[in-house]
Amino acid sequence: MSTRKLTGAAVAEHNSKDSCWVIVHGKAYDVTEFRLEHPGGQKIILKYAGKDATEEFEPIHPPDTLDKYLDSSKHLGEVDMTTVEHEEKTADPEEVNRQERIKHMPSLAACYNLMDFETVARSVMKNTAWAYYSSGADDEIQTMRENHSAFHKIWFRPRVLVDVEHVDFTTTMLGTKVSVPFYVTATALGKLGNPEGEVVLTRAAHTHDVIQMIPTLASCSFDEIVDARNGDQVQWLQLYVNKDRSITKRIVQHAEARGCKGLFITVDAPQLGRREKDMRSKFSDVGSNVQANDGDAVDRSQGAARAISSFIDPALSWKDIPWFQSITKMPIILKGVQCVEDVLRAVEAGVSGVVLSNHGGRQLEFARSAIEVLAEVMPILRERGWENRIEIFIDGGIRRATDMLKALCLGAKGVGIGRPFLYAMSAYGQPGVERAMQLLKDEMEMNMRLIGANTIADLNPSMLDVRGLVGGHSGSMPSDTLTIGAYDPLQAPRFSEKSKL
Amino acid sequence: MSTRKLTGAAVAEHNSKDSCWVIVHGKAYDVTEFRLEHPGGQKIILKYAGKDATEEFEPIHPPDTLDKYLDSSKHLGEVDMTTVEHEEKTADPEEVNRQERIKHMPSLAACYNLMDFETVARSVMKNTAWAYYSSGADDEIQTMRENHSAFHKIWFRPRVLVDVEHVDFTTTMLGTKVSVPFYVTATALGKLGNPEGEVVLTRAAHTHDVIQMIPTLASCSFDEIVDARNGDQVQWLQLYVNKDRSITKRIVQHAEARGCKGLFITVDAPQLGRREKDMRSKFSDVGSNVQANDGDAVDRSQGAARAISSFIDPALSWKDIPWFQSITKMPIILKGVQCVEDVLRAVEAGVSGVVLSNHGGRQLEFARSAIEVLAEVMPILRERGWENRIEIFIDGGIRRATDMLKALCLGAKGVGIGRPFLYAMSAYGQPGVERAMQLLKDEMEMNMRLIGANTIADLNPSMLDVRGLVGGHSGSMPSDTLTIGAYDPLQAPRFSEKSKL
Amino acid sequence: MSTRKLTGAAVAEHNSKDSCWVIVHGKAYDVTEFRLEHPGGQKIILKYAGKDATEEFEPIHPPDTLDKYLDSSKHLGEVDMTTVEHEEKTADPEEVNRQERIKHMPSLAACYNLMDFETVARSVMKNTAWAYYSSGADDEIQTMRENHSAFHKIWFRPRVLVDVEHVDFTTTMLGTKVSVPFYVTATALGKLGNPEGEVVLTRAAHTHDVIQMIPTLASCSFDEIVDARNGDQVQWLQLYVNKDRSITKRIVQHAEARGCKGLFITVDAPQLGRREKDMRSKFSDVGSNVQANDGDAVDRSQGAARAISSFIDPALSWKDIPWFQSITKMPIILKGVQCVEDVLRAVEAGVSGVVLSNHGGRQLEFARSAIEVLAEVMPILRERGWENRIEIFIDGGIRRATDMLKALCLGAKGVGIGRPFLYAMSAYGQPGVERAMQLLKDEMEMNMRLIGANTIADLNPSMLDVRGLVGGHSGSMPSDTLTIGAYDPLQAPRFSEKSKL
Amino acid sequence: MSTRKLTGAAVAEHNSKDSCWVIVHGKAYDVTEFRLEHPGGQKIILKYAGKDATEEFEPIHPPDTLDKYLDSSKHLGEVDMTTVEHEEKTADPEEVNRQERIKHMPSLAACYNLMDFETVARSVMKNTAWAYYSSGADDEIQTMRENHSAFHKIWFRPRVLVDVEHVDFTTTMLGTKVSVPFYVTATALGKLGNPEGEVVLTRAAHTHDVIQMIPTLASCSFDEIVDARNGDQVQWLQLYVNKDRSITKRIVQHAEARGCKGLFITVDAPQLGRREKDMRSKFSDVGSNVQANDGDAVDRSQGAARAISSFIDPALSWKDIPWFQSITKMPIILKGVQCVEDVLRAVEAGVSGVVLSNHGGRQLEFARSAIEVLAEVMPILRERGWENRIEIFIDGGIRRATDMLKALCLGAKGVGIGRPFLYAMSAYGQPGVERAMQLLKDEMEMNMRLIGANTIADLNPSMLDVRGLVGGHSGSMPSDTLTIGAYDPLQAPRFSEKSKL
Repeated sequence: MSTRKLTGAAVAEHNSKDSCWVIVHGKAYDVTEFRLEHPGGQKIILKYAGKDATEEFEPIHPPDTLDKYLDSSKHLGEVDMTTVEHEEKTADPEEVNRQERIKHMPSLAACYNLMDFETVARSVMKNTAWAYYSSGADDEIQTMRENHSAFHKIWFRPRVLVDVEHVDFTTTMLGTKVSVPFYVTATALGKLGNPEGEVVLTRAAHTHDVIQMIPTLASCSFDEIVDARNGDQVQWLQLYVNKDRSITKRIVQHAEARGCKGLFITVDAPQLGRREKDMRSKFSDVGSNVQANDGDAVDRSQGAARAISSFIDPALSWKDIPWFQSITKMPIILKGVQCVEDVLRAVEAGVSGVVLSNHGGRQLEFARSAIEVLAEVMPILRERGWENRIEIFIDGGIRRATDMLKALCLGAKGVGIGRPFLYAMSAYGQPGVERAMQLLKDEMEMNMRLIGANTIADLNPSMLDVRGLVGGHSGSMPSDTLTIGAYDPLQAPRFSEKSKL
Repeated sequence: MSTRKLTGAAVAEHNSKDSCWVIVHGKAYDVTEFRLEHPGGQKIILKYAGKDATEEFEPIHPPDTLDKYLDSSKHLGEVDMTTVEHEEKTADPEEVNRQERIKHMPSLAACYNLMDFETVARSVMKNTAWAYYSSGADDEIQTMRENHSAFHKIWFRPRVLVDVEHVDFTTTMLGTKVSVPFYVTATALGKLGNPEGEVVLTRAAHTHDVIQMIPTLASCSFDEIVDARNGDQVQWLQLYVNKDRSITKRIVQHAEARGCKGLFITVDAPQLGRREKDMRSKFSDVGSNVQANDGDAVDRSQGAARAISSFIDPALSWKDIPWFQSITKMPIILKGVQCVEDVLRAVEAGVSGVVLSNHGGRQLEFARSAIEVLAEVMPILRERGWENRIEIFIDGGIRRATDMLKALCLGAKGVGIGRPFLYAMSAYGQPGVERAMQLLKDEMEMNMRLIGANTIADLNPSMLDVRGLVGGHSGSMPSDTLTIGAYDPLQAPRFSEKSKL
Repeated sequence: MSTRKLTGAAVAEHNSKDSCWVIVHGKAYDVTEFRLEHPGGQKIILKYAGKDATEEFEPIHPPDTLDKYLDSSKHLGEVDMTTVEHEEKTADPEEVNRQERIKHMPSLAACYNLMDFETVARSVMKNTAWAYYSSGADDEIQTMRENHSAFHKIWFRPRVLVDVEHVDFTTTMLGTKVSVPFYVTATALGKLGNPEGEVVLTRAAHTHDVIQMIPTLASCSFDEIVDARNGDQVQWLQLYVNKDRSITKRIVQHAEARGCKGLFITVDAPQLGRREKDMRSKFSDVGSNVQANDGDAVDRSQGAARAISSFIDPALSWKDIPWFQSITKMPIILKGVQCVEDVLRAVEAGVSGVVLSNHGGRQLEFARSAIEVLAEVMPILRERGWENRIEIFIDGGIRRATDMLKALCLGAKGVGIGRPFLYAMSAYGQPGVERAMQLLKDEMEMNMRLIGANTIADLNPSMLDVRGLVGGHSGSMPSDTLTIGAYDPLQAPRFSEKSKL
Repeated sequence: MSTRKLTGAAVAEHNSKDSCWVIVHGKAYDVTEFRLEHPGGQKIILKYAGKDATEEFEPIHPPDTLDKYLDSSKHLGEVDMTTVEHEEKTADPEEVNRQERIKHMPSLAACYNLMDFETVARSVMKNTAWAYYSSGADDEIQTMRENHSAFHKIWFRPRVLVDVEHVDFTTTMLGTKVSVPFYVTATALGKLGNPEGEVVLTRAAHTHDVIQMIPTLASCSFDEIVDARNGDQVQWLQLYVNKDRSITKRIVQHAEARGCKGLFITVDAPQLGRREKDMRSKFSDVGSNVQANDGDAVDRSQGAARAISSFIDPALSWKDIPWFQSITKMPIILKGVQCVEDVLRAVEAGVSGVVLSNHGGRQLEFARSAIEVLAEVMPILRERGWENRIEIFIDGGIRRATDMLKALCLGAKGVGIGRPFLYAMSAYGQPGVERAMQLLKDEMEMNMRLIGANTIADLNPSMLDVRGLVGGHSGSMPSDTLTIGAYDPLQAPRFSEKSKL
């Protein structure tokens, strides 16, 4: 045990790729090797090479992160913080404007639907946080927006003169009774939106008696989120499978021990997607074009890092399923299935469920929406008589009770909702999330009545007109894409500025 | 009988949910319990708790409202109005601007079609009135606009070289001969648009020899509207079925006694839709976010009120039809049917007609347009040989004679038109409504000639190309929706403000 | 014969519907009865009741109009023009701006396609003239624009490695050899665009060796247009059939005598369409709303006038065809046929051809485009082996050689082009029309090569992909319509102007 | 050999169509006859008639151009440049602005996708260069944009739980192993974008181990481009077939001798397309309308020149294929095939491959996209068992790895990319092109993982949803076209400026 603290100057020497130290909460760490494993890329680590990274680190990492993921040999000990140079921060005019917008933000009661939270959040969140939450794959032309707009291809065939005085939309997911057929799906980095992080969602989920899925990449630690549970509140675990299966085994068995009731293995992210809005939001165009080429080199290695991060094992395959079944009794659900062939294979593999999902449109551009895949999957399951051998969930783009109803009429057991609750939390905290959930319930009650259904069991495909899904994706592109933005329309003949006569 | 009048101070004490009194026309009423039944929600009532509500009450309620719906035990007697405090009204700049716009409004002759009235009305109506009339379900993305745009999927196959010197578009609906195949459908709260209310429509309907359907929730009393009738003018009754069937029975039998020729039972509104434009227009963002949470609580209870209002019985079902048949000889028509299964059931139930309708897009978002449902219904009726066992009407989105002709070619007996006449009335009074009707007749005469039909009987499906309806709803979303509004498009690389060289 | 001239004051007394005199070129006429027959409506006549109408009359009427159409008993004799009061004209700021725009207009060489002429014409034409030429039926949402956009549903399947050094796009229409498969179709009121009127088109047609169709409602007299002919130039006659068949007979036989080679009987206009852009452009909102109601009355009677004008007989029917065949040897073509049933009937009636047309989108809104009807007609004609019993022409929306090629591949003999030449004439006179024709020929030569066809005979349906026509009209509405314009989109929550903190 | 140099005055006398001399690099040339052969049109030559054209000539012509294409009899000898008058150039404000934009251009690292290069290039390129590269056929409504947007009709059906730790997207084209399945396709006039011209692309292609196709109309000479080759780098030759086959033979055999590994004969350009953006960018509206008619005449002759240029033989046909097979052993590929009939014929003709292409949307408007033609072609080839008898390439609109993957899943061997590399080169030189290629590889690696494919051989049609291609082109037109631009939407009634009350 050294009682001598490190000096700022000593740490500052390790400011390169070849030797990279950072200070967090008054302690120094050697992250020279780790930086390539960092799920958030090495670029942000190198920015703080030789410096104090606490302010950047703190809001998005669980407190136990460094103990958990960085070998103790890389823990270099305490730093005499009086010797560490502080950077002068210049007032950021964008931040000043943001604070001004926060002062004038609409009251919570003015939000009447889930889109309203998104609109407010965009104005009151930090730009980088907004970019991280809102970004999608590639140029976001299609998949991310399609997730919601696909619901617009399905219309209702409501029944009238049904006694709907009492409507009951409670249902059961993986054996748990819930008050309404949605759950809070896993989303990363909750502290970007709210300093308390994911526990805010835990509390709101309790208020409304819905299930929360705990993300692997939460800003709060897993135990903090479980500890925030109230009574017999149910939680599930979302899992990124680590290359080191012993880490994965530890995570899974710990979750089961702490009472998690479902294991949702993410299967649609062997490599994290390129999200250009997010990348651009972090980009500081400080250098000349010559320096920019260095930036390019960094970028490329970041790409590499993304590909080989041991946090998410790209080698995960169907062969691994029996192993999961051997280490836990929790029901296993595959999150991110995208075609009927893989749903059939999942049934054969004996898992309890699948989530049809394209990862919120953040991974593969031109992945189809979950609701469209659901419409492909259910008739084939029914044809085989397999519809009760597996529970089908969907997520992506659900913003209204009508969206939820469409999924349930088609045959889904429930739907996951992610970003809208993040936006509500970022703008208004726990009351925001609770109001968002209440609005969905209000809409649900009304719309159950309006389509003529008393219970979830009454919902069935004859209540829908799904012909709009048959034609595939023949529509025109949206007009606000990069492609269209780069196009230079033809001009008509110009009138001259000077008279010709 | 007390001769002592109540004082303003005494009334003012009852200013909460627990005890809520209001003053109307110099009399006090206890509405503590009633507020939950109020079809317009309790929020507006609580706003006037302990105060004089006359100015708000008067323009939208029939004079007999309180006698009719509030038990006499809640009539508290006269108030000494000299003791009631008056609120100072500050000049509303929006109202000043509106008055200015009214001074410059286009002359009636400048309106050439039904959309023109809507455009003018939007500028000259009070914002809350406009919001009430114009609002639709949810975010209005689809159903409300689809009602009109669905007509655009149907094109004509006109015949030429037909002698069309004389065209005759008179027809018969439920036994009544009319000059043109539309009727004035029921719409609530006419006094929001014109101080005289629905009688303006009665008079215009007489001028043009068309039928008016009297709304349950009119601003004028039922008898006022019937009294405004001229000669053998025909009216129908639109009915919201009360939980208390004796009230309903009284209303129906009174209508029959006063000569109504058709009973249109609304079946698409077991619960009134959430109309966010309307809600937002009434919202006063006065409080901080903390107070807003109270607002939230109020809102929620309003939602509850909406659901359980005894004015509209959500338990109404097919089982009730024989009872209606037993209490009246008027032909019974179900208003708000939305799929062929329910039309067939209506035939079997022995009713005289159905109105295919989605309540002007104000109830269920993604309900299909009436014209689309008509195209689904008629071939199946004809297949069964049932097309003459029932009269099919449609409403929603009719703005042009071409829309009307499409419905009639498909097999409808007539079409209901609502909002356009409200807008014409709100902007120009009775002459406005009459011009709107005349424009439709002018268009009708011309378009009958142009498609080569002399009489309504000549209209048939071979005059239409309906292939556009087959594909379902695969088109792209409109670009002015909340969803798109909340989306933040990608940006191209930014040029810097400072030179790099 | 009176030698005494009428005084201005005497004429001015006849300034009402009941007695309506007007002065033209120094002579007075009683048009009290005629005003109801006036194809342009009585409104414009009543504007000049009791006044000198020469300036308004002259630019759009053939010089022989009054002699031809007004009974000599209504010719009141000469007026002493010194006694006629002159109205002071105030400088019209719009006209000043227009003259300024004319000074800066692009040179003709800057027009590279037919749309360019339209863009220029819109800026340099008088507003009323532009409105007359450019207006379409109803709110122009569909038919007028569909005429062009329907071509966009058809794509090419070009053949490569065809020797296309020499391409020849001459063809034959009704026995006349022409240099390119388009003709100048009939359009009314040419002097609105150019003081010389239709003879400008005659001369340009000669330059490019194409046929001109002479309109019944030309601004030049029929004989003036025939006299402008050069060499063996060919002209056809477009005919509105008069209620008085003796007038029609005289017109037809005169045309045949003067050498016309085809009689195109308009069958799609039993009543002239309502063209709201045109109506609005003429509307002067001078009065109060009370006076406006008078305007309304006038409008209505104008509607009536339109309906019963003897210039165009709404009773014209298939029964009249043999009569036409009896009075002329010219080939008879029906202009304005719109479905396959009527084409088959035309074959059976023994006419020489039909023009599939919806009158430039000026008559029935939601009439299908000619190119779509052509795709419906030709396969059925071929199935019956009738494709050579009749010549099929189309007009409407042709702006590019690709449009023309699509029509010819499907089976049309030729296409009519109207508005584009009017715009070219209005902006640049005869050189404009000639350049427009040359551009079409340049495009035609190039595109023949690019699809791999040497001659018109090589064009066939296998060179097209017409699947886009199969689905009917399911697309979304354009966004610049009256309907959308009148719609008030939902708003997101508003940020307050004052801080809440 | 004359030692007497020509004077500027002597040259200046030959300044007309009838006798046209120009000076290039201090030597005079008689181009009176040649001007009609000039692939760029005679207009630009006549602009320099009698003058020094070096500055215009130099950046776009290979140095050996005049020796190669102009008969030595037309080489008039040296000019005494001191006697040549110099034109004063006025500062071009557009050029000043462009230089300013270049100073502020984004750093290369800020470009995250291929569209970004296009956006930057548009701002930093000379207008005429941008217009030449970016222009398409006719009004660019369809084909050019369709090339990219057609990819949006195809969606993925990705497979999950595939071990994708190692992905390998190397493949083989015409026997050459490449690192990724794209090649640099031929594009003309590289020096417009970068003073070094096509050799920049050669070097970048080497860096990334991809094939470059050398264009006939390069700005660098063929040998310069070959000389820039590095190691065993592979190049192909794109060929415009000259009317004089001996020239063509010389070019082909020289290319083979210098090591080219494929002969791509362009078959979609018997006549160069009219590209109106390009034409408009070169147009100087100096004259009055009278002079403009002269301009018109010039234009027309340019049209003629285009049609008959001996540089590209419009008589090229299937009959010529055996001759090509007789003069070279290089594999022969037909570039520009556009329907399945011609692909089958190509197989029968025994060529090695076809490029499905519409020449970047620069030739025939409404030519279908290559990806759509590919979806038509492959099933029919497979049905006949011919899919291995020919290699199918596509080009046009490829901007993302997802586009490439769609083509490969359908059955293409590889895709050509043209404009994006030109834009990257124009904005950032060789590093720009290399980054563009690297971005494609990064996207490719990620997307291979995300659709669940380890190698190119794993890609197959079941990974796609191509239903969107079935319906043909029924969508609505883009809203920024000339047609829509020329349309004048209807207006609602206008409010007056003065009050009426």
